[in-house]
Amino acid sequence: MSGTDVAQLQQTAIDAFSVVEHPRIHSPKGFYAAGLHCGIKRKRKDLGWIVCEVPASAAAVYTMNAFQAAPLKVTRESLEKEDHLQVMLVNSGNANACTGPQGEADAYRMRRETAELFGISEHLVGVASTGVIGELLPMDRISAGLRALREQMDQVRDSGHDDFAQAILTTDTCTKAVEVVVAVEGQEVRIAGVAKGSGMIHPNMATMLAFLTTDAVIEPAVLRGLLREVTDETFNMITVDGDCSTNDMVVAMASGLAAHTTALQPDHPDWPAFRSGFAYVCRRLAQMIARDGEGATKLVEVTVSGAPTQETARQSAKAVVGSNLVKAAVFGADPNWGRILCAIGYGAPLIDPTSVDVKIGEIPVVKNGLPVTFDEEAAQSVLSRDMVKFHVDLHQGEFEATAWGCDLTYEYVRINACYRT
Amino acid sequence: MSGTDVAQLQQTAIDAFSVVEHPRIHSPKGFYAAGLHCGIKRKRKDLGWIVCEVPASAAAVYTMNAFQAAPLKVTRESLEKEDHLQVMLVNSGNANACTGPQGEADAYRMRRETAELFGISEHLVGVASTGVIGELLPMDRISAGLRALREQMDQVRDSGHDDFAQAILTTDTCTKAVEVVVAVEGQEVRIAGVAKGSGMIHPNMATMLAFLTTDAVIEPAVLRGLLREVTDETFNMITVDGDCSTNDMVVAMASGLAAHTTALQPDHPDWPAFRSGFAYVCRRLAQMIARDGEGATKLVEVTVSGAPTQETARQSAKAVVGSNLVKAAVFGADPNWGRILCAIGYGAPLIDPTSVDVKIGEIPVVKNGLPVTFDEEAAQSVLSRDMVKFHVDLHQGEFEATAWGCDLTYEYVRINACYRT
Repeated sequence: MSGTDVAQLQQTAIDAFSVVEHPRIHSPKGFYAAGLHCGIKRKRKDLGWIVCEVPASAAAVYTMNAFQAAPLKVTRESLEKEDHLQVMLVNSGNANACTGPQGEADAYRMRRETAELFGISEHLVGVASTGVIGELLPMDRISAGLRALREQMDQVRDSGHDDFAQAILTTDTCTKAVEVVVAVEGQEVRIAGVAKGSGMIHPNMATMLAFLTTDAVIEPAVLRGLLREVTDETFNMITVDGDCSTNDMVVAMASGLAAHTTALQPDHPDWPAFRSGFAYVCRRLAQMIARDGEGATKLVEVTVSGAPTQETARQSAKAVVGSNLVKAAVFGADPNWGRILCAIGYGAPLIDPTSVDVKIGEIPVVKNGLPVTFDEEAAQSVLSRDMVKFHVDLHQGEFEATAWGCDLTYEYVRINACYRT
Repeated sequence: MSGTDVAQLQQTAIDAFSVVEHPRIHSPKGFYAAGLHCGIKRKRKDLGWIVCEVPASAAAVYTMNAFQAAPLKVTRESLEKEDHLQVMLVNSGNANACTGPQGEADAYRMRRETAELFGISEHLVGVASTGVIGELLPMDRISAGLRALREQMDQVRDSGHDDFAQAILTTDTCTKAVEVVVAVEGQEVRIAGVAKGSGMIHPNMATMLAFLTTDAVIEPAVLRGLLREVTDETFNMITVDGDCSTNDMVVAMASGLAAHTTALQPDHPDWPAFRSGFAYVCRRLAQMIARDGEGATKLVEVTVSGAPTQETARQSAKAVVGSNLVKAAVFGADPNWGRILCAIGYGAPLIDPTSVDVKIGEIPVVKNGLPVTFDEEAAQSVLSRDMVKFHVDLHQGEFEATAWGCDLTYEYVRINACYRT
């Protein structure tokens, strides 16, 4: 993590929660994790799961893409039946997308065989896949892999986190994990998360998966509401190249094994602390995903404040962070306020341009919609940082939103154009 | 123009109109054009106009961007007052955008001085600018340029077209013009158009300008309706990098000097011929703009048919042509059906994926939402053409739309990242 990131992290951490230095997805009470190589990929780990000692309150959000992969359908069905999950099974190397009826049968089989290994109801198992699309899963290898995972369950209590975090990766350049500790009724509550980002996979789709665990006592409906709310301000605010995958999914599991006695909900005195810790985990994972986008050299953070509506704030922030012109300018460290203004203009076509201020880092470049003279070199050095921040104040309301993305580089074009050569 | 383009052009021309081999914006009766270098740019032509002997029925469409440049405001005001234009003045090298009150005063001054040179009402003059934003226009040079344009008016009757077409360019690599002849009541009616594309200008915005002339007899309201309709299916269906400029404008002028006696309107027997000719001019200009996008090596055409609504057809066609993943795959000649499917999936999130067919050129790659085996080499050669076509049939309705764009190349990143270095 870059110095800038750490600074921001520590600042955010001066809050109702503390950030754990070595995050582990199985730190919250009741959780185990494991991962191994079963043979979908040539060498690297490709199968893993998160297991809970008890049925955990669970919630999930799914991609809006019309082409939803089979595992999403199966996981949704599990949650609709029970609202609880005890095992979340994930494979990488094959997305089981655009695979028709056989693909669905395979996803159901993964769920069934996992349930059998633990002697639990099928509806307590969720499945997720990421990787190649349009190809069928090697089910025999996966079945063997499941049995192997089950056998090593006990030994991996500690190494489990790394194995799982690696097993869900595709072309990500690093594992992504965050953990925080929150005090609820004076008791320790842990919230952990692991994610994989938009590495490109033949035939190339960006898939984002995130898995959250906590030992908080919380009802599924409350967890679902929180997850949707927080996803809108975190995972739904990142864009690497504007493409939205067929397999995206975020799943949260709450074991309820923490020591606090009253279930968490918005009127609980410690709800604000829990919510901020939960949101922090999601925000950090979202930033890590954006930072690890194809060919990216920088994390870009765009905050739009003073918006007349939440939607205007979000759309204009995403317009700026998603603009190829802005992304390329960041890559070239070009303090190109015109491109930022332009993106705001089409992201929020109804705003009054004459009150808009723009800052590159802390340097004002636009005031009341008009350019102001600024130190080019200073702005270029801001744009050379590992994390580049833009702030746009519309001065037209109270709403604010932040979006994250990355720069557009030669490497992005190389990865995506010359994949086969 | 590439062989593919020409082929398509000729095919389209087997229609109620014929395509003129050497298009000239001043071919329609009553029009003159001129252009020269007045000193906004270092060397190249930067000031030009289209002049009509009589006040011409006129209509315009403008960018939806909140940051509309001053000249758009002035031109809109002219049209709201009279619905007629006699002079359309254009400068390149400076967009007069984000220039505040002084910028507006300058745009009004351009309009006033032009009106004075012809002794006509100010409201018969429209102005357009493209180029650098955030800098004031060199008004003395422009004033001198206007006088020079007025003096050479008579000599330039024939060279006028090239001078004007060049004077509106920024970093376009070529001039863009189209002309067709349509028979109305057995009389010859000409429709001509000139455009400039999304060359990038410091500090970099893509600006699209198009000017259409015709000698047809047509009421302003009818022309306006036609222009809006046709713009939605042509200029509004191109995307080079998804960014939408502050200065985009399309202006149509009709002198009414053709020999047909009944004004054109939808119930006129020759309306279909006129409309198809008008639409052809706009479509060809739109294609030329897309083809000349930054760093582009190929024109990409995406047609979505069988859509449940027009909006679904347009949004999904634009999603595919605008997808960085698809654009990079085209650059790399990678027959990447997954990326096309993915873009359709988020462009039209509510469609049923199981009935979707995709063709790369004439080669089926997806049938009923599932991949079909195809000849990779044949597909790669389709993707190596100068004009690449994708066809997506949703089989879920009667609506169809076509969008145009270009590939994403190293050169695009170089132009936009390393502009200042």
